[in-house]
Amino acid sequence: MKSKKTMDKVVALCKNRGFVYPGSDIYGGLANTWDYGPMGVELKNNVKKVWWQKFVQESKYNVGIDAAILMNKEVWVASGHVGNFSDPLMDCKECKTRFRADKLVEEHMTKRGIEKASADGWSNEKLKKYIDDNNINCPSCGKHNFTDIRQFNLMFKTFQGVTEDSKSETFLRPETAQGIFVNFKNVQRTTRKKIPFGIAQIGKSFRNEITPGNFTFRTREFEQMEIEFFCKPGTDLEWHDYWKKHTWDFLLGLGINKENIRFRDHEKEELSHYSKATSDIEYLFPFGWGELWGVADRTDYDLKQHQEHSGKDMTYLDPTTNERYIPYCIEPSVGADRIVLAFLVDAYDEEELEGGDVRTVMHLHPAIAPFKAAILPLTKKLSDKASELYDELRRDFSVDYDEAGSIGKRYRREDEAGTPYCITVDFDTLDDNTVTVRDRDTMEQFRIKIDKIKDFLKEKVEF
Amino acid sequence: MKSKKTMDKVVALCKNRGFVYPGSDIYGGLANTWDYGPMGVELKNNVKKVWWQKFVQESKYNVGIDAAILMNKEVWVASGHVGNFSDPLMDCKECKTRFRADKLVEEHMTKRGIEKASADGWSNEKLKKYIDDNNINCPSCGKHNFTDIRQFNLMFKTFQGVTEDSKSETFLRPETAQGIFVNFKNVQRTTRKKIPFGIAQIGKSFRNEITPGNFTFRTREFEQMEIEFFCKPGTDLEWHDYWKKHTWDFLLGLGINKENIRFRDHEKEELSHYSKATSDIEYLFPFGWGELWGVADRTDYDLKQHQEHSGKDMTYLDPTTNERYIPYCIEPSVGADRIVLAFLVDAYDEEELEGGDVRTVMHLHPAIAPFKAAILPLTKKLSDKASELYDELRRDFSVDYDEAGSIGKRYRREDEAGTPYCITVDFDTLDDNTVTVRDRDTMEQFRIKIDKIKDFLKEKVEF
Repeated sequence: MKSKKTMDKVVALCKNRGFVYPGSDIYGGLANTWDYGPMGVELKNNVKKVWWQKFVQESKYNVGIDAAILMNKEVWVASGHVGNFSDPLMDCKECKTRFRADKLVEEHMTKRGIEKASADGWSNEKLKKYIDDNNINCPSCGKHNFTDIRQFNLMFKTFQGVTEDSKSETFLRPETAQGIFVNFKNVQRTTRKKIPFGIAQIGKSFRNEITPGNFTFRTREFEQMEIEFFCKPGTDLEWHDYWKKHTWDFLLGLGINKENIRFRDHEKEELSHYSKATSDIEYLFPFGWGELWGVADRTDYDLKQHQEHSGKDMTYLDPTTNERYIPYCIEPSVGADRIVLAFLVDAYDEEELEGGDVRTVMHLHPAIAPFKAAILPLTKKLSDKASELYDELRRDFSVDYDEAGSIGKRYRREDEAGTPYCITVDFDTLDDNTVTVRDRDTMEQFRIKIDKIKDFLKEKVEF
Repeated sequence: MKSKKTMDKVVALCKNRGFVYPGSDIYGGLANTWDYGPMGVELKNNVKKVWWQKFVQESKYNVGIDAAILMNKEVWVASGHVGNFSDPLMDCKECKTRFRADKLVEEHMTKRGIEKASADGWSNEKLKKYIDDNNINCPSCGKHNFTDIRQFNLMFKTFQGVTEDSKSETFLRPETAQGIFVNFKNVQRTTRKKIPFGIAQIGKSFRNEITPGNFTFRTREFEQMEIEFFCKPGTDLEWHDYWKKHTWDFLLGLGINKENIRFRDHEKEELSHYSKATSDIEYLFPFGWGELWGVADRTDYDLKQHQEHSGKDMTYLDPTTNERYIPYCIEPSVGADRIVLAFLVDAYDEEELEGGDVRTVMHLHPAIAPFKAAILPLTKKLSDKASELYDELRRDFSVDYDEAGSIGKRYRREDEAGTPYCITVDFDTLDDNTVTVRDRDTMEQFRIKIDKIKDFLKEKVEF
C-alpha cells in the first residue's frame, strides 16, 4: 500500500535536503517566513529561468521589465489598493483572538455543505449579520462576543527619508502588476512594439496577511511572475483563451500530473469589479485545491485609472488603422513560491522497493532539478578521474559531487534532491573511459562513453 | 576629437533604449528609484546569471541560498544594525536643508587637498568640532548656523501584523549577508560541506539613504550579490587574496577596461572594527572613482555575534583534525545595480565614422548583451524567411527582430542596444541559404551559412 503524501513529509524533506528552511531559524523564526537553501534556490531559479524562456525569450509578443518594489504612493491610490486592499478583521472580546470575519463565514458555509462558500466582497455589516444570525462562535474559546468588524489594509507601510509623516509614507508593492502598468508607455515607446504585446516581470511583492500559512503557499513576502498582455478591446477573450492554454501547457510540459491541476472559472459575483473573466489553474495540494495561476481579463481598468490619476495619456494609436484606444489587458499571474511548492509536492514520492525498502524520490523535471547529475567515484581512489569529469561538466550544468558512503546511500541522497542522473566512475572507467549512468526514475543503469555525457545531459534537460 | 563620456549621455541612452527608466515615471518619479526596461532587465539578468555561473555553478567551494528580506528583528540587534547602522545628520537652521555631517567634512577635506578625505567612524562631537573650527558653511545658503548632529538609523522600518507597536516592528534587510550567517549551520548540515566553503546569495536590500544619487549608483532599494566564504582562522588572508583575484578576473573577463578599475585597500582607521582587511575594487565613473566590489575579511565577528544572541552553537568541527572553531569569513560583495552601471558606462562609446557621422555604440560583452543578435530582413518581402530564422534562434538566445527603416538605421539602433551581431536576410539568402553577419564592434560584414549561425553565436556568447 502506498503511504499518503502529506505536507509534513514534504516540509521535512525540504528542511533536511536544503530546499527550504524556516526563516530566521536560529532566532525561532519569523511568522511564516522561509529561506531557500542550496537545493531550493537552484530549483526556484530554474523555474524562473524556464518561465522567462517560454514567456519572454521564446515569445514574439512579450518583453520583460524589472520595476522597483518602492513606488510613488499615488500608484496605489490609482490602483485602488489604498482604498480597497483590505481584510475584514474582528476580535473575540473574551479570548482576544483575532479573525478574518470573511473566513469565519466561509468556514461555517463549508461546514453546512454550501458548495461555493464565498464571502468575497461582502460588506462589514453583511458579515456581522451572518455571524450573528447563524450564531457562529469563536473557534478559539467557543464564546460569541465579538468586536465590530473593521477593514485592515494589507499593504506594508514604511517611511522613506528621515521623518515619519504621511509625506514620506510609502508602501512595499502588494503586486508587481502596477510596475508594468505605469511603464506601459515607456516600454511601448522604446521597443516600438505594436499591439498585441505583453510585458513580463518577476519580482517580490508583500502583503500583510493576517493568516499566512501552509508552508510557502501563503507568505507575507512572496515572488510573482506576471505578464500584462495588452490587446485591442474586443479581442480580449480570445487572448484570455490563448494564455489559459499556454499556462496550462507550461505546467504539463514540466511534468505536473494532469490529475492534480484543474481550471476554475470565477463566478460573476466572485469577479473583481473590473474583470470580465478570470480563470485560475488550481493545484491539488495535500491541504486541498489551491490557486496557482490566475489568468484574468482586467479590461482597460488599470491603464484608465492611471490615465485619470497621473494625467498622462495612456492610449495607443494603431499605426495601420489610425484608431486610438486604451488597450485591454490579460494578466497571467503566478506565484513563484507557489509554483515551486506545487512542483515539490508533485515530485514527492515514496516508492516501495524490492525487498521492502522504501525510497523517497523527487521526480522533478530535469529542466528544473537543482542538480542535473551527480558524480560518484566508486572509491576515493577514483577521485582524480571523477573530479576531472566534475570540473568538465560544471562548466555547463549544475552538478553534485559525492564520495561519502556506499553507492546505495549516495543514490538515496540524490533521489531526495531530485538529481535525475547519477554518474558512477569505477575502475573500468580508467580503462575504457565509460561510466555508469543511473536513471533516477527508472533506477535503470547503463554504460556510456564519458565524451557523450554532455550531449546526453543537454538533451535531457531541455524544455 | 573624441567627445566626453558623461553620466547625462549614459542616462539618456538608458531611457531611450529601454535600459533604465525613472521609477513611477508617470507620477513624477520617487526619489531616485529606477525601473529596468526590456533591455535593462536582460542585461541585469545576464550579469546575475554569469555571476552565479562563475561563483556558484563552476565553483567547487560555493553553494547558493535565497533568504527572505523580512527577518526576525533580533538578527539586526545581533549584527549591530539596530545599534550602529546610522548616518550623522545635521540641519541648517537658516534654510532648513539637511546634510550628512560626515560628507560635509569630507568635501571640505577634499577641497583643501587632503588626500584621504574620510570622516568614517568620527563621533558627533568630533564632526561638530571640525565643522566649527574650520568654519564650514551651509553649501545651500552659505550661513553657519547648524543644529546639533544626531544619528539616523538607515534601516527601513515596517510592521508585520495588525498592530503598529514595537513587538510587530520589523526591518527591510539592509544587507543580504545576515541571511547567510543565520543559515550557516542549516547549510553546512544539509550540504555536508567541509570548511573552506562559501554561501552565495543574490537579493534586494534596502537602506534609507539620506542622499541617494548618481543614477543607479546609490539607491535606497538595491540588489546585492554576496558571498560569505567560511575558512579556518589563520587561512583568512590567503582566501582574501584568492577572492580579490577572482572578482578582478571576473570584471576583466567581461570586458571591463583595465584602466577604469583599481583596488583600494582600506586604511587601518577606516576598517570596520571587526574587519582585519578590506579591499574595494573601484570603478572610474564619470563622477569619479566609486566602490564597486568590496572584499572584506570579517573574521568570526558575525557568527560569534549570532552565537551570543541566539544561544545557538555556531562552531564547526573539523572532521579530520577534530578541532572545533568558529570559522573566519571572507565576504566578496558587489551591488548588482552598480556593476550593471559600470558595464553600461564602460560600454558606452561615441565613434566618429568615415564621412563625419557619429555612432553611439554599447560595447557590451556578448555574454551580458541583452540581445545576442538581431534578425533584419532587407525588405518586408523577406519577412517569411527572416521570421523562420528568428523562431529558430529564439529557442537558444535572446534575439531581436526589426524590419522597420533602412538597414543603416537598424544597425544604429542595435548598436545602441549593444547587440553584438546583426544578421541580414537578403534575396541571396533565398538562393544559397547564407546571411550577412555584421559585427557591432568592428562593423565588418561577412557571409555565413544559416545552419552555422547557432554555433557561431554559441561560441561568441560564452564566458
